Amino acid sequence: MPVSPHIPTLDDVANAAGVSTATVSRCLNEKQKVSPKTLEKVMEAVESLGYIPNFNARAMAARQSHTIGAIIPTMENAIFARGLQAFQEALLDQGYNLLVSSSAYQPDLEAQQIRELVARGADGLLLIGYERDEAVYDYLARRGIPTLLAWASLPDTRHASVGFDNRAAMRCLADRVIGLGHRKIAVISGIIDGNDRAAERLSGVKDSWQAHGFHLDDLPIIQTPYEIENGAAAFVELMQADVKPTVIMCGNDVLAAGVISKARDIGINVPDDVSVTGFDDIELAKHVFPALTTVHVPHREMGRIAAENLIALIEKRAEKATHRLDVSIVMRASLKGL
Amino acid sequence: MPVSPHIPTLDDVANAAGVSTATVSRCLNEKQKVSPKTLEKVMEAVESLGYIPNFNARAMAARQSHTIGAIIPTMENAIFARGLQAFQEALLDQGYNLLVSSSAYQPDLEAQQIRELVARGADGLLLIGYERDEAVYDYLARRGIPTLLAWASLPDTRHASVGFDNRAAMRCLADRVIGLGHRKIAVISGIIDGNDRAAERLSGVKDSWQAHGFHLDDLPIIQTPYEIENGAAAFVELMQADVKPTVIMCGNDVLAAGVISKARDIGINVPDDVSVTGFDDIELAKHVFPALTTVHVPHREMGRIAAENLIALIEKRAEKATHRLDVSIVMRASLKGL
Repeated sequence: MPVSPHIPTLDDVANAAGVSTATVSRCLNEKQKVSPKTLEKVMEAVESLGYIPNFNARAMAARQSHTIGAIIPTMENAIFARGLQAFQEALLDQGYNLLVSSSAYQPDLEAQQIRELVARGADGLLLIGYERDEAVYDYLARRGIPTLLAWASLPDTRHASVGFDNRAAMRCLADRVIGLGHRKIAVISGIIDGNDRAAERLSGVKDSWQAHGFHLDDLPIIQTPYEIENGAAAFVELMQADVKPTVIMCGNDVLAAGVISKARDIGINVPDDVSVTGFDDIELAKHVFPALTTVHVPHREMGRIAAENLIALIEKRAEKATHRLDVSIVMRASLKGL
Repeated sequence: MPVSPHIPTLDDVANAAGVSTATVSRCLNEKQKVSPKTLEKVMEAVESLGYIPNFNARAMAARQSHTIGAIIPTMENAIFARGLQAFQEALLDQGYNLLVSSSAYQPDLEAQQIRELVARGADGLLLIGYERDEAVYDYLARRGIPTLLAWASLPDTRHASVGFDNRAAMRCLADRVIGLGHRKIAVISGIIDGNDRAAERLSGVKDSWQAHGFHLDDLPIIQTPYEIENGAAAFVELMQADVKPTVIMCGNDVLAAGVISKARDIGINVPDDVSVTGFDDIELAKHVFPALTTVHVPHREMGRIAAENLIALIEKRAEKATHRLDVSIVMRASLKGL
């Protein structure tokens, strides 16, 4: 992609003169409000950089595209569908359009898509989770693209975020499982490399397991991509162990749906022979049989707040903020006590 | 949105001179390969239109963004997810990026999103179905944006399309249902207004019903948006009739999943008390219980072919074509004979 020649901006002038952009703006539009010394310093920077106020005003106006980009890891399996739909509805209410890319859980592809959306004039970006190359965040900061991270909530406000504590939520579910008497737990996790949500959920199970005095050596874990078929295959493998698990805790509902479906196929009763849990409470969770015990994520609320907060950032009505949503355990038939 | 002034293109010159664009190109670049008469005709058109070869070459180079836009009716419920994922994978293989918008089944919003994607430099568009305002097709033709329609296949090549015959497929399924002895059919259809796929599927049931000598008055039909909850609500309504249906034929798997789930809740056994059928064979269809008899749509194949054919249009390696895919009936436990 050809790089466009750098056109000096208000920021450049402000940096060169060592003043704020508001001061530069006053020097150009309301000279009477500025000291002669400041005015001289700023106008020198304007001259030396070749800054053209009108040109930039037009460029700025054109830059507000009222289009927001979102990059989600996958469009399959409806993991992000409901939240994204709510995000779009809230954007449309405010006159913003949404363009979505899917990165297939590939960090390099996501980085390329971020540049692509910025090149196509996106006013701001929604990204999923926080774990990515610092170079990506540097790029977004340099280009001044307001960015909001969803499906995760960070303790600091270096990044704006809307989400929930994946680790604490999964720990809470594991506490519940252990509280029901289960001592033989097996985990089917998503691939944790490059997926902070999956990594945090797995840590949550481990936290609970260790807090109850058990050893990690006694916690079988399979990592596999989030596909129904992969959940089914991992389940078959786990049930071949000498010590059979009494409960399978899955990194999300898609994997858990695969377990439930496969269990029926091979004549294993859920929950009488083995219990199953999920995470996300996507539509599927209610409609598999038996219905799935899972962590309910308020997808629509998350999408709506993400839209509001991202637009506020774009329109400079708010500072970066972290919004942490409550999640809850939904007890359904797939989990029972021993 | 301001309309950019029309800059004469190679196509305009070719049309004015009554020759192919390849001939125009030869006249400009390889004069020795063209007859004097053709050269004269073409150069007259170049002059009178004010065509500037270099300018256009640059404009063309800049125009090729290697970005393709897709507008799908909804991101929820994974109806389009698998096909779209395959579409994107095939695009990426060819160096094209994908931007997706969701129109929420609203024609006005879709028309606006089409303009938005064109404004952001999309090289081509994927749209779902064929039923839309002629003004939209006129706009795309004027702007010269290659467009491919998916999830439908048209008998002519006015539009490029990749899909299947929704009407024939649903008729085939209804024939099977009637062949199993069912004489009390009720239909839960999607909203047919503005949704050609839903309209064709409903027509397919009616075709079969009438071909078997039955009256449309005896075919209860409820139209409702494609949501699991709506399928459940429509089912309750249909089961309150004096003459209870022995089979519920649904416009898609999402509605059917709602029927199956609600039946279990209210103590109606599927398929012993009532059979259920769907359409699409999305992931959900295999994993509800009992598993759903449905029309299998080859989503991944459709997505892949859509990508190949759309890129061929963009790169001018092929003419508009219609690609019709075979669909098949998948018999699962939710349908049984009387």
